[in-house]
Amino acid sequence: MSPAVGGGLVLPLAGFSGLGCLFVDFSHSAMAADYLHRVSDFVRNEVEPVEGEYHRALHAGDSPWTVLPVVEELKAKARDHGLWNLFLPDSERGAGLNNVEYAPLAEQMGRSFLAPEVFNCNAPDTGNAEVLLQYGSPDQQAQWLEPLLRGEIRSAFCMTEPAVASSDATNMAATATVDGDEIVLNGRKWWSTGVGHPNCRFVIFMGLTDPAADRHRRHSMVLVPTDAPGVKVERMLSVFGHRDEPYGHGEVSFTDVRLPLDNVIAGPGRGFEIAQGRLGPGRIHHCMRLIGLAERSLELALTRGTSREAFGKPLLNLGGNRERVAHARIAINQARLLVLHTAWLLDTKGLAGARSEVSQIKVAVPNMALDVIDMAIQLHGAAGLSEDFPLAAAYAGARSLRLADGPDEVHLGLVARYEMAPYRSGTSEGGGRG
Amino acid sequence: MSPAVGGGLVLPLAGFSGLGCLFVDFSHSAMAADYLHRVSDFVRNEVEPVEGEYHRALHAGDSPWTVLPVVEELKAKARDHGLWNLFLPDSERGAGLNNVEYAPLAEQMGRSFLAPEVFNCNAPDTGNAEVLLQYGSPDQQAQWLEPLLRGEIRSAFCMTEPAVASSDATNMAATATVDGDEIVLNGRKWWSTGVGHPNCRFVIFMGLTDPAADRHRRHSMVLVPTDAPGVKVERMLSVFGHRDEPYGHGEVSFTDVRLPLDNVIAGPGRGFEIAQGRLGPGRIHHCMRLIGLAERSLELALTRGTSREAFGKPLLNLGGNRERVAHARIAINQARLLVLHTAWLLDTKGLAGARSEVSQIKVAVPNMALDVIDMAIQLHGAAGLSEDFPLAAAYAGARSLRLADGPDEVHLGLVARYEMAPYRSGTSEGGGRG
Amino acid sequence: MSPAVGGGLVLPLAGFSGLGCLFVDFSHSAMAADYLHRVSDFVRNEVEPVEGEYHRALHAGDSPWTVLPVVEELKAKARDHGLWNLFLPDSERGAGLNNVEYAPLAEQMGRSFLAPEVFNCNAPDTGNAEVLLQYGSPDQQAQWLEPLLRGEIRSAFCMTEPAVASSDATNMAATATVDGDEIVLNGRKWWSTGVGHPNCRFVIFMGLTDPAADRHRRHSMVLVPTDAPGVKVERMLSVFGHRDEPYGHGEVSFTDVRLPLDNVIAGPGRGFEIAQGRLGPGRIHHCMRLIGLAERSLELALTRGTSREAFGKPLLNLGGNRERVAHARIAINQARLLVLHTAWLLDTKGLAGARSEVSQIKVAVPNMALDVIDMAIQLHGAAGLSEDFPLAAAYAGARSLRLADGPDEVHLGLVARYEMAPYRSGTSEGGGRG
Amino acid sequence: MSPAVGGGLVLPLAGFSGLGCLFVDFSHSAMAADYLHRVSDFVRNEVEPVEGEYHRALHAGDSPWTVLPVVEELKAKARDHGLWNLFLPDSERGAGLNNVEYAPLAEQMGRSFLAPEVFNCNAPDTGNAEVLLQYGSPDQQAQWLEPLLRGEIRSAFCMTEPAVASSDATNMAATATVDGDEIVLNGRKWWSTGVGHPNCRFVIFMGLTDPAADRHRRHSMVLVPTDAPGVKVERMLSVFGHRDEPYGHGEVSFTDVRLPLDNVIAGPGRGFEIAQGRLGPGRIHHCMRLIGLAERSLELALTRGTSREAFGKPLLNLGGNRERVAHARIAINQARLLVLHTAWLLDTKGLAGARSEVSQIKVAVPNMALDVIDMAIQLHGAAGLSEDFPLAAAYAGARSLRLADGPDEVHLGLVARYEMAPYRSGTSEGGGRG
Repeated sequence: MSPAVGGGLVLPLAGFSGLGCLFVDFSHSAMAADYLHRVSDFVRNEVEPVEGEYHRALHAGDSPWTVLPVVEELKAKARDHGLWNLFLPDSERGAGLNNVEYAPLAEQMGRSFLAPEVFNCNAPDTGNAEVLLQYGSPDQQAQWLEPLLRGEIRSAFCMTEPAVASSDATNMAATATVDGDEIVLNGRKWWSTGVGHPNCRFVIFMGLTDPAADRHRRHSMVLVPTDAPGVKVERMLSVFGHRDEPYGHGEVSFTDVRLPLDNVIAGPGRGFEIAQGRLGPGRIHHCMRLIGLAERSLELALTRGTSREAFGKPLLNLGGNRERVAHARIAINQARLLVLHTAWLLDTKGLAGARSEVSQIKVAVPNMALDVIDMAIQLHGAAGLSEDFPLAAAYAGARSLRLADGPDEVHLGLVARYEMAPYRSGTSEGGGRG
Repeated sequence: MSPAVGGGLVLPLAGFSGLGCLFVDFSHSAMAADYLHRVSDFVRNEVEPVEGEYHRALHAGDSPWTVLPVVEELKAKARDHGLWNLFLPDSERGAGLNNVEYAPLAEQMGRSFLAPEVFNCNAPDTGNAEVLLQYGSPDQQAQWLEPLLRGEIRSAFCMTEPAVASSDATNMAATATVDGDEIVLNGRKWWSTGVGHPNCRFVIFMGLTDPAADRHRRHSMVLVPTDAPGVKVERMLSVFGHRDEPYGHGEVSFTDVRLPLDNVIAGPGRGFEIAQGRLGPGRIHHCMRLIGLAERSLELALTRGTSREAFGKPLLNLGGNRERVAHARIAINQARLLVLHTAWLLDTKGLAGARSEVSQIKVAVPNMALDVIDMAIQLHGAAGLSEDFPLAAAYAGARSLRLADGPDEVHLGLVARYEMAPYRSGTSEGGGRG
Repeated sequence: MSPAVGGGLVLPLAGFSGLGCLFVDFSHSAMAADYLHRVSDFVRNEVEPVEGEYHRALHAGDSPWTVLPVVEELKAKARDHGLWNLFLPDSERGAGLNNVEYAPLAEQMGRSFLAPEVFNCNAPDTGNAEVLLQYGSPDQQAQWLEPLLRGEIRSAFCMTEPAVASSDATNMAATATVDGDEIVLNGRKWWSTGVGHPNCRFVIFMGLTDPAADRHRRHSMVLVPTDAPGVKVERMLSVFGHRDEPYGHGEVSFTDVRLPLDNVIAGPGRGFEIAQGRLGPGRIHHCMRLIGLAERSLELALTRGTSREAFGKPLLNLGGNRERVAHARIAINQARLLVLHTAWLLDTKGLAGARSEVSQIKVAVPNMALDVIDMAIQLHGAAGLSEDFPLAAAYAGARSLRLADGPDEVHLGLVARYEMAPYRSGTSEGGGRG
Repeated sequence: MSPAVGGGLVLPLAGFSGLGCLFVDFSHSAMAADYLHRVSDFVRNEVEPVEGEYHRALHAGDSPWTVLPVVEELKAKARDHGLWNLFLPDSERGAGLNNVEYAPLAEQMGRSFLAPEVFNCNAPDTGNAEVLLQYGSPDQQAQWLEPLLRGEIRSAFCMTEPAVASSDATNMAATATVDGDEIVLNGRKWWSTGVGHPNCRFVIFMGLTDPAADRHRRHSMVLVPTDAPGVKVERMLSVFGHRDEPYGHGEVSFTDVRLPLDNVIAGPGRGFEIAQGRLGPGRIHHCMRLIGLAERSLELALTRGTSREAFGKPLLNLGGNRERVAHARIAINQARLLVLHTAWLLDTKGLAGARSEVSQIKVAVPNMALDVIDMAIQLHGAAGLSEDFPLAAAYAGARSLRLADGPDEVHLGLVARYEMAPYRSGTSEGGGRG
């Protein structure tokens, strides 16, 4: 199809190419609906009620870098209910759900900071598991994937670096040098989420192996036991004052870390290829969890706003508060539909058919969530800023997702590039973000 | 399901009640896809290319309140192609498309101010036709519906009044008084769109019949021939300087207009009931047309922004312009999905199952469209403000839809009320918008 | 002063360089206060009350491109009151007010589309008069300046061109070629405001004279009688549907327009130098008039919002309307102070000391005004879109000022460049707007 | 003056009443300029360079609730330089600066979280000192004011309560009951800033004394030694994860705290009167400090954005980053001018002449600061979220000021009420915020 548009340029139909097919059937499979109800019930009945006490207990002890018994109890219960590893598309080990089916479950898990681990669906373990499932050797799977899927160990992912603008992946400075049948790692990574967990046993490290190779064949991903000589967690970082114990975000140095070549995932030079595959589903998960967080925040706002009074009226009957609630509902619904549509594209057309949309949700959803959470904070008054409500921590988490996995600006640049592609070629000089 | 939330309140699951079922299948029927391709081709190949010349010819003549031959030619061609009355759900007279299937066609028609009439899918004729189809007597249908569906006559709808805040329907002051076997109309209406068209033969008038009746049984809808004694078009109004000839927006006085009782649609007192039924599909149509207008504006922005240069670069490579394009794409996609989901709710659950969503789109889409059109204007420089591009007129049209069919603020109030409904009852005193 | 900042960079104090001195004394001279009261009274008592009737009379006649008697009566009255040519800094011909003193008067005049001409302070006549006063020869002054200052003739300014992105002044294509003792003009200009006025007797044309000269010595400004052979007003443009009769915005062609060299202002090659001088005061005037327009719009919103009712309450007591009023007040006050401070910088430090600020107000004020006017429109319902209130025309006027005299984006680029100047030099490659 | 406006309503001139006199002279006194230079130098040369090390040392020790020696050293140095108690309008004890003169100094101090204490200008000590200076008895001044002004002790202010919406002051539940020649305090307060400081020796407590008295005569302010029996700091609260050690924000219970009547400031029933007086200058100080924080954040953004590269360019040359810098500059400048103008009104007309403006700055400035800080965070990437830069803490501080001293919504309601006052009276039913 080549209709004439505007000044006469021949273009594909945005209505089709932009949104795939436009006809929608919001029905669903019975299995997926059943999971959704069960996860939703579990989060509300088992997880949310213990959040407050868990938080207090964690911070009342000697160190918050610990696993409280309640977590293991909840994990066991979720596993008994068959609500375990639901993120795994692989049907032997997981539930065999596709992205569209799993997305609403991720939303439910996003309501509580405790929930993802309870269902063994915590990032970055989920992404690491997918990598090992798809690219790992049988030995790698036996050693690391199986205990990870049993919830016995945790893991981290080491990609971002402190010394360079990591929004541009070609800036990466850490090295993974092949030396005979060994690989030697050097460099400094940070924002390695989960590396503070007492059960964190390995990280996946990405580094430069062959600077002379083709641009997408230069890097390798390496499995690194956290107790390997030369690996050191230098410090744990805070996000808006939150350290997110017991997972945490670490700055990790790698100094002449020497490992067998067998620790390289899929062999040297395949780092970018593997990283690409993580991105689509990972961003769906992040975004759906944020939607759950936004829904929870809106519920808190409604609860507070209808029950607390000032000037003789419930807060929501004052000024523009009702309008703010309405805007929140509209924003959440739009964001959810955008993510679900992106999940559907991923399922039906693969990452190649969803590149723009994956960047779109990466921009739209964290910003939406921040607006909703901020509104909820404001309705709570100063209490909303404190640890008495999960809102300030929610804000910190959502804020970090405007930067993690690529800042807004990089994704906006990508979306723009896809829009401009059908137009004249002279504008492509802009590089990564123009 | 009654899980515990936040402070312990028992609530339905927002995830279900708010968005119906969450699982999405973006597939579509072969018939609907075929219509979409054909309408899209027709708009781009037949309608858009003649827009500029049509506009110039209309305003070069003695009066723009006329029907140029090209319009009748296009109508005949569209009818020959079977692209006619597609909005009609009734399968004998129309294509039998439901809201989800028709919505993307409305989007295509929204790209051009000429297109809706070409396909005989112009408002308010569409809503008037639906009313007559559902509520009209056989005589009313023969006299008014059939020529309307053949595209031989046009019509208008007279509801809004100049003297009162029509956002509150109970303010309505015009009367439709039963006097024996006649009904007598008095009052002044304005923003009667289409009443300036040379072929406008009737209006549907809404007035107060029985102030003592139950609140939703007080008003009547009456079929009024435009040449009935006592009907006078006092003046044609402008919207941001545009009069939208040859349709126009009229201020119409009704002075002792005396008609047979048979002209009352479905009998006296059923005005509100009938008005309700118009709203759902009508808002879907308006919103989807605006999405088409936004897509067209984005295309114009991309065409201009990639072809015109300043400071040695295409405009889109300057400053934040690419980000603006990306934001436009994200906003359009989110809005379209929200409307499609609302259409699906209307189709599967009726208006009662889509009340909040219908108000959500009524707020979200016009504001989105205004942002996108304004961005496109800015990229065109001063030319964007002029009649050389359809952008200024598009802005005026989209701006009026923040007021027509209820201003943003009323719809936000409704959305908020639906959100608050599950919470405590003490906050319901706020009336229409609190 | 060279304190260390952030990462150790040595910078001037933003507190000083950015805002000049920070200490403020909001007192004023008795003369300026007297003018302010008198202009304010005149606008409210003499001009605003006749606006509606003027508008109706203008559009009821055969042609709106005419001067109604009421205008000449008001001009005579204003002149009799000594409220005439107040913009002129020159104290013999004008009132001798500086920018800080004149700015509040411009605000008052901005309240009504009629007022600027009534006080003989209409753009672009004001800028043209300043140019002639400062650069014109005695003959040029006698022939064009004196009747302009007497209000007997009007004028226009021809700079922007349709075929190129005029935001980049180096794109200018029109030519002003010296041929012996004559100058020959060729090219096409548009958005020549005021050229439609029946009394428009001359335009100032800017064109390329010597492409080989230094970048700022290439262009000339030429006085062109509107009846010179080769000058043709091709059409009058609309802005959001408004033609702003009887002034209008014209597209004007110049075809071998041959004039004596004496018509060149200050001699060939000085066009840019002269243009520079216009910009500072001109932008102050535009911005202050917009502030007056925003104040007037807020007053209309308050009048409507306190007098019209829906759902049993005045409109302003519904939803977020009061908050919108408050935001409007805050935005207007901030904008006014920014312009007054810029005026003070212009008066005390010249254009060189106010470059960033002049660009700041050029971005901030039109956008503020649009927000306030749009809010007022929304509070008026559909009436706000019509010609029954001055709001739609106000919106069109304010919207055009996001493009006239440089679009927002160019000015944002300039402001950013001034901010970045003290930092490292490697970022200056961005050209006009980076 | 009573000119006719809009629909004929007679109104005062907004141009005068809204902004006082409009003529501006941005000159300043030599003394104030000298202070500004010296404070600015001190902050940049003495305070900012030690911030990072101070922060690390504070958190490396056993407890951050301590005073590090460097603070006392800086205090001594500032005092030696005569940069001490500059906030005090009283010229014997302070510098005798008015609000306009002190405001720019507060801006400089706001650049660093350390600076206010260094100059003994820390809140709430400043407000407490002013209260004691104006209302305190000689004994109260000797016992509490003198050591406070010498920087030997610190203090807190106990007003907000956890159990009620404190945005409505009439909700206050704590009691200060006269019992013979004693006063007995009961209740629970929170967000008592500074109560965690090791040198905090007293708080000012506000409680209900006589519920039957006139609305503004019901409450008392009482001086309470922190070691009085019945006073208990229950816990220290966090703001977005920050505890702001060693000052902190405490939740404090008062249980039958029995004190001599002499501890009541100015006698029972004068609490509201005293509280009123604090508000004007206190909000000026808060807002100017936030402007300093915003300037500092913009400097950090410029430093980072010009020195770090991605995709081969400095960050500021990518996408819309330059526009963001320009918007930040414009927003800061507007906010500063609004605060300075408000300070001038306070100085020249008192609180009664600046009520709307004090509420305007309370809304405008924190929101502006949040936007600028957030932009700076985004330009820093994930580092901006961490403790490596002062940005996350700055965000938390600015965010809390959208709630402290009245949330945005209350102040917007007040601003709207002042705007509506000249219009018809029927709209005044809205109470505190309508």
